[in-house]
Amino acid sequence: MNAMRGSARKLAETVWGTGSGRTRVGYLGPPGTFSEEAARRYDPRAHHVPFRDIESVVRAAEEEKIDEALVPLENSTEGPVTRTTDLLVHRTDLRIRREVVLPIHLCLVTEGGVDFDEIRVVYSHPQAIAQCREYLARRLPKAETVASLSTVSAVEDMRVFGPGTAAISSMRAAKVRHAFVREGRIEDVAGNRTRFVVLAPRDHEPTGKDKTSICFDFAADGPGTLYQALGELANRRINMLKIESRPEKSSLGRYIFLIDFEGHRTDPFVGEALDRIRERASSFKILGSYPKALDPAP
Amino acid sequence: MNAMRGSARKLAETVWGTGSGRTRVGYLGPPGTFSEEAARRYDPRAHHVPFRDIESVVRAAEEEKIDEALVPLENSTEGPVTRTTDLLVHRTDLRIRREVVLPIHLCLVTEGGVDFDEIRVVYSHPQAIAQCREYLARRLPKAETVASLSTVSAVEDMRVFGPGTAAISSMRAAKVRHAFVREGRIEDVAGNRTRFVVLAPRDHEPTGKDKTSICFDFAADGPGTLYQALGELANRRINMLKIESRPEKSSLGRYIFLIDFEGHRTDPFVGEALDRIRERASSFKILGSYPKALDPAP
Repeated sequence: MNAMRGSARKLAETVWGTGSGRTRVGYLGPPGTFSEEAARRYDPRAHHVPFRDIESVVRAAEEEKIDEALVPLENSTEGPVTRTTDLLVHRTDLRIRREVVLPIHLCLVTEGGVDFDEIRVVYSHPQAIAQCREYLARRLPKAETVASLSTVSAVEDMRVFGPGTAAISSMRAAKVRHAFVREGRIEDVAGNRTRFVVLAPRDHEPTGKDKTSICFDFAADGPGTLYQALGELANRRINMLKIESRPEKSSLGRYIFLIDFEGHRTDPFVGEALDRIRERASSFKILGSYPKALDPAP
Repeated sequence: MNAMRGSARKLAETVWGTGSGRTRVGYLGPPGTFSEEAARRYDPRAHHVPFRDIESVVRAAEEEKIDEALVPLENSTEGPVTRTTDLLVHRTDLRIRREVVLPIHLCLVTEGGVDFDEIRVVYSHPQAIAQCREYLARRLPKAETVASLSTVSAVEDMRVFGPGTAAISSMRAAKVRHAFVREGRIEDVAGNRTRFVVLAPRDHEPTGKDKTSICFDFAADGPGTLYQALGELANRRINMLKIESRPEKSSLGRYIFLIDFEGHRTDPFVGEALDRIRERASSFKILGSYPKALDPAP
C-alpha cells in the first residue's frame, strides 16, 4: 500500500546541506515527479531536495534551508496549483527568479515483459488515468483502473500487487523505480505542458528577453478600472502575455488580477507603467522579473 | 477494488427516457458526486442522469438524449475542468443556459461507530486528501492515506477493506452509499466552491440580472488588441466579471480570451459592444447569456 504519511516522513528527514557548495533546489517530491524532472532540467548540477507539499518547499526557501524553490504554477498533473498562486499573492516575499516549461508525457510501465492480454489492473493518479482514457480503451479494454496517490506511487502499487498489473507514470518515475517502460507518450491529447516557477529571495537581473509577473486589485470596482490599468501597458507598447482574474476570498465580488507581460521591471517604460498601475490599485505586488522560457521541444 | 471501467459501463446503461415528461439533466456521475449535488440543487424535480465523463454528458445533450448538461467549469475537486472550457470554445454549439455555484465541503465517514484510535487507513481522491491534510495530521495522526478514484468510490473502498478504515467524501456521497458521517466540514481551508454551468441548445432569456460569457482571439498580436476590446465594454459602462487568457493549442504564442461580463447579449449596449469586438477578433463566440447565480450560503 502506498502511504502518503510514510513517504512524507521520509522526505522530512532529507539532509539539508551537502557541504558541496552546490545550489540547493527544493521541489515537490518524491523523486520521480514531474517537479523533479523540471528541477533537473532547470539545473542539472544542483542538489535537488524533495518536499512533501508546496507550502513546505516555499517555507524552506524562506528559511534559507534551500536556495531556490521550484513549484508548479499552471496546468499541473500533480494537484491543485492554485496553492502556488495563493502563496505568491498573499503569503510569501519570495520572487519569481526563473520559469521552466516542461512537456508532460505519460507511459505504460510493467514489472517485466508481461503480455498486454494478461494485464488486469492499471494503477495511476486519477488525473493521469483520465488523460489516458482513450488509450486504455483501445489497448487494455479488459483492464480495470485503480487509483494511486501519484504517478510515482502508481509504480510501487503495481509492484506490490504483482503479476497482471501495470502503471501509468512518467519516464522519470519509471527510471527512478526501475520499472519497464512498455509504451511511451500514451496520453490522449498531445501538447500538455506544465509551467513551473523558481522562487528565491531576489528575482533575476535583466537579460533583454524578460517577462514580469504582477498582481493587483482595486477597492473601487467600476467597469473601467482594469481597462485603465491595461491602458498603462498598451500605451507604452508593452506586450501582455497572460491575464487572469480570480475571486478575492476575503471579500466577495472583488477580484485579484494576475498579469504577465514582456520586459523587465527595471526597464524605464515598464517601471513607469508599474508606477501608474500601483497608484490606481488598492493592493499591488511585483511577483518578479525573469528570463522568458523558450517553448520546449515536445 | 474500485473499477472505473466497471462503473463506467453501469453508467452507460442508464435508461434515457423516463416517460414522465420531467426535464432530463445529465451530470458527471456516479450518483454522490458534487456534480450530482449541483444538479439536484439546480432542479430538484428533474430526472438526473449520470455520465462517465464530461464529453459524454455534452454529447448526450447535443444528441437530445437529455435536455440539459450540467458540467463543472471552475475549481472542481473532480478532475480537470479545462476539458469543459475546451468543449465550449472549440467543439460544441450548446450554450450556457444557467450557472450553479456549489460550496464544497468534505466529511469523514466510517462504516459504523469505530473509535478514531482504531482507524488505520483513510481512503479518498488524492485532491480531497490534500485538502484535508492538516485535519488528518491533527485527528488521525497514525492513519495512512490511500488513493481512490473519486470521493464516491472512497466510500466503497472503505467498505471493501473493512474494519479500521475511514473515507473522506461529501455528505451526499455518504448518504447515497449509506455510510456514517463522523465529522463534517473537515477541509483545511474554508470557502472552497465549484462553479457549474448548464448547457442546452439555447441560452436563457433576459431576466434583468444576467451575465454573458464570450471567447475570442486575435490574428494580429500587438500590445493593444485586448485593451481595445476591453475598451468596447468599459466605454459602455459594462462591468467585467472575469477574464482569463489561455494559450491557443494549435498556434504557439497565440491566446484565447474568455470574458464574463454583466448584462444580456440582447441588451442594446451589450449587443453593440459584442459587434465591435467581433469585428476586431479573428475568431469570436458567444458562449451564452444567463441569470447570474447568487453567491451560495456556505
